[in-house]
Amino acid sequence: MEFNFKFTQDGLIPVIVQEASGTPRPSGRVLMFAWMNRESLEKTLAGGLMTYWSRSRGKLWLKGETSGHTQRVVRWFVDCDKDVLLFEVEQSTGACHTGYESCFFQELDASANPLPIGEGKMFDPAATYGK
Amino acid sequence: MEFNFKFTQDGLIPVIVQEASGTPRPSGRVLMFAWMNRESLEKTLAGGLMTYWSRSRGKLWLKGETSGHTQRVVRWFVDCDKDVLLFEVEQSTGACHTGYESCFFQELDASANPLPIGEGKMFDPAATYGK
Repeated sequence: MEFNFKFTQDGLIPVIVQEASGTPRPSGRVLMFAWMNRESLEKTLAGGLMTYWSRSRGKLWLKGETSGHTQRVVRWFVDCDKDVLLFEVEQSTGACHTGYESCFFQELDASANPLPIGEGKMFDPAATYGK
Repeated sequence: MEFNFKFTQDGLIPVIVQEASGTPRPSGRVLMFAWMNRESLEKTLAGGLMTYWSRSRGKLWLKGETSGHTQRVVRWFVDCDKDVLLFEVEQSTGACHTGYESCFFQELDASANPLPIGEGKMFDPAATYGK
């Protein structure tokens, strides 16, 4: 596929992942942020399951390959500059490796101090990933 | 302020900006994606108006400084890796410089072709920014 997007010098594009809302405009919870390269984007579109480029591991990363917590693509959007993607997904269980639904579970106050977390975990990371 | 975040080698951190939802968990529309450095984050927290680091212009960027379309901070979150920020904001008029409410107005199909845009513009960019 020929993508008319602006990738970084490293061949990557930032991806915002949002829970599918079913509304005319996306209004679900933001679940995570990650990066794709062309190959991971091709695989995502071909298979319908979110596949990223793991910068830390330097390889393709099918979300849920270990945990089973896959993300099925519902809709996707590109931004006005064609350098950021937004995916709406159906998230199996929780998105965050810590066990929370979203990676953005930690609210901060105006001094950047953490506030109490107002929700529970969706799964036990130790049971899911091993120790 | 001492920020316990992971900034890039360039001293930046990615920022996802979402319309404030009023719900226990953020569920507004994603409006835009941008970058902050420490100084822009300090200004954002001190003044309550979203201030970014413009990578293209190499300077601080108070969102709305030209258009008047400012973004007032409502809540903010850090992700599990402490390297991405999520801000809930009250957006004045529209966030996108093209006139749309959100920069993510362009939906794509599974072949990455653009779908018809199902919404109108919030403002006229030519009148707001000049030609």
